[in-house]
Amino acid sequence: MSPGRKLRIGVLGPGATASDVVALAAEVGAEIARQGAILVCGGLGGVMEAAACGAKRAGGLTVGIVPGVDAGEANAFIDVPVVTGMGEARNILVVRSADAVIAIAGSYGTLSEIAVALKIGVPVVGLRTWVLRSPDGTEPPIIRAASPSEAVAKAIEVARS
Amino acid sequence: MSPGRKLRIGVLGPGATASDVVALAAEVGAEIARQGAILVCGGLGGVMEAAACGAKRAGGLTVGIVPGVDAGEANAFIDVPVVTGMGEARNILVVRSADAVIAIAGSYGTLSEIAVALKIGVPVVGLRTWVLRSPDGTEPPIIRAASPSEAVAKAIEVARS
Amino acid sequence: MSPGRKLRIGVLGPGATASDVVALAAEVGAEIARQGAILVCGGLGGVMEAAACGAKRAGGLTVGIVPGVDAGEANAFIDVPVVTGMGEARNILVVRSADAVIAIAGSYGTLSEIAVALKIGVPVVGLRTWVLRSPDGTEPPIIRAASPSEAVAKAIEVARS
Amino acid sequence: MSPGRKLRIGVLGPGATASDVVALAAEVGAEIARQGAILVCGGLGGVMEAAACGAKRAGGLTVGIVPGVDAGEANAFIDVPVVTGMGEARNILVVRSADAVIAIAGSYGTLSEIAVALKIGVPVVGLRTWVLRSPDGTEPPIIRAASPSEAVAKAIEVARS
Repeated sequence: MSPGRKLRIGVLGPGATASDVVALAAEVGAEIARQGAILVCGGLGGVMEAAACGAKRAGGLTVGIVPGVDAGEANAFIDVPVVTGMGEARNILVVRSADAVIAIAGSYGTLSEIAVALKIGVPVVGLRTWVLRSPDGTEPPIIRAASPSEAVAKAIEVARS
Repeated sequence: MSPGRKLRIGVLGPGATASDVVALAAEVGAEIARQGAILVCGGLGGVMEAAACGAKRAGGLTVGIVPGVDAGEANAFIDVPVVTGMGEARNILVVRSADAVIAIAGSYGTLSEIAVALKIGVPVVGLRTWVLRSPDGTEPPIIRAASPSEAVAKAIEVARS
Repeated sequence: MSPGRKLRIGVLGPGATASDVVALAAEVGAEIARQGAILVCGGLGGVMEAAACGAKRAGGLTVGIVPGVDAGEANAFIDVPVVTGMGEARNILVVRSADAVIAIAGSYGTLSEIAVALKIGVPVVGLRTWVLRSPDGTEPPIIRAASPSEAVAKAIEVARS
Repeated sequence: MSPGRKLRIGVLGPGATASDVVALAAEVGAEIARQGAILVCGGLGGVMEAAACGAKRAGGLTVGIVPGVDAGEANAFIDVPVVTGMGEARNILVVRSADAVIAIAGSYGTLSEIAVALKIGVPVVGLRTWVLRSPDGTEPPIIRAASPSEAVAKAIEVARS
């Protein structure tokens, strides 16, 4: 991390999800902003929109890396839309652009982002997300958290180290 | 699938792996070629090289979609190197370019490819690969196979349908 | 453009360049910030660094979409590094993420970004940049500007329309 | 180039074009096949389809790197569709995957591919294509050809060296 540059925390999660998960995501976003970090996400609805909304209400800066070709697909709480036109491949950019990521709940898209983070060495904090077991019986090093504030605290801690 | 165009079967698996997995991959590649399909893979070593080697020995055509900027990184059994310069993001192209994929064993890269296939609806056959459980306790529709010939037979069957 | 979202102006130009071009780029960046727009660029040196430096000194927000896998390659004036790991293909994201782009001077990378902008319909303002003639003798609709302030004024105007 | 691996020649050109350009492209494709090289292109219509058609009729192998998410968008003369889902960014893969490229006529997409080839050092042969002048008055090293056979001969020559 560059000295003086703010931490960037990625939030991964499905574009359509249950209301309790939305509430979790909003609180994660708010806590990221309170901690002075930039929120990076995929820019669309569901977990992404709730997290961005939470971050904006807490005075934060939000970046949305969208899959399509139009900045207009970013949700209303995104300050900086990054327009990729790359579809699902944009997930990798969300992960790469974050110092640590928090995975909330679990679509297949979220699973692919978790896998990419594990592959390229970006720390992953999990909140009600996938359970994975490799063919040799081991579990990947996902840092489990029980609440939004714990998830953000752990993400900030590993992002700094 | 275009009439008259050959089926393309993707083989996903780690670039470095144990010798029994290498033997499985070689047999998968050979069987793909015997069935008249084109082998698509990530073009590097380990499972990818063994599968391509098996396919070539059985008279098949092999495509390797490599992550770097040099066709020279493709293994010696790749007929058509596709050079992306996109790093891990090339995994998505391997999946998208196949009518069905066979995931063998399990690195994080393989996990990300399985997740992408599930996300975009490309059928996945698994051979000694990841076990996944979503937050709501369900398991994704990975078609399990017990042998290379069963894996290829199932992949060809779902690719055709 | 979303109501309430700030305009994003892209600055395209070589990573290594002459000092008079650097001065032009710094003034372009400063003027973008003064006009209340976000600066989007490729995040590296030369024109990109000078423009970001100018924007920061004028109190603006800067986004750098870098080609490599490490946010650390972004220059010191980038607030939000977007890390692609996609090499040259990241140029397309710089163009797509801007409401209009200003091309300064001329490397081959800059030429490719101009071409992509023309292709996908993002307005291009040119400041001492490439002259292009298609096979049928026509010239593409690059909006020529004679000074940094004129370039930014024209970019903002076309970005709004 | 790997010993024993066939040369790959890329053909760049617009998806919709005049009939005389189509005839040129078909002859370029046929000559690539006669010379024993693999044709790589963007897989769609116009110049891409004509070149692939020519190559198939002369017994060659054709690769089409398509922008969308469906192999079905590849034209009928493509043996190996590579499906990117990356839109215009796929142009860079066409260039990277070729040992040399032949640019025919001139859309903005073709211009962007020429620029990328110049940037990353893939030799470019031009047939009735763009004329470019950099800000310092120089012209890029595009190898001009007057006929399809001359274009292919020059492309093969530079690809081998």
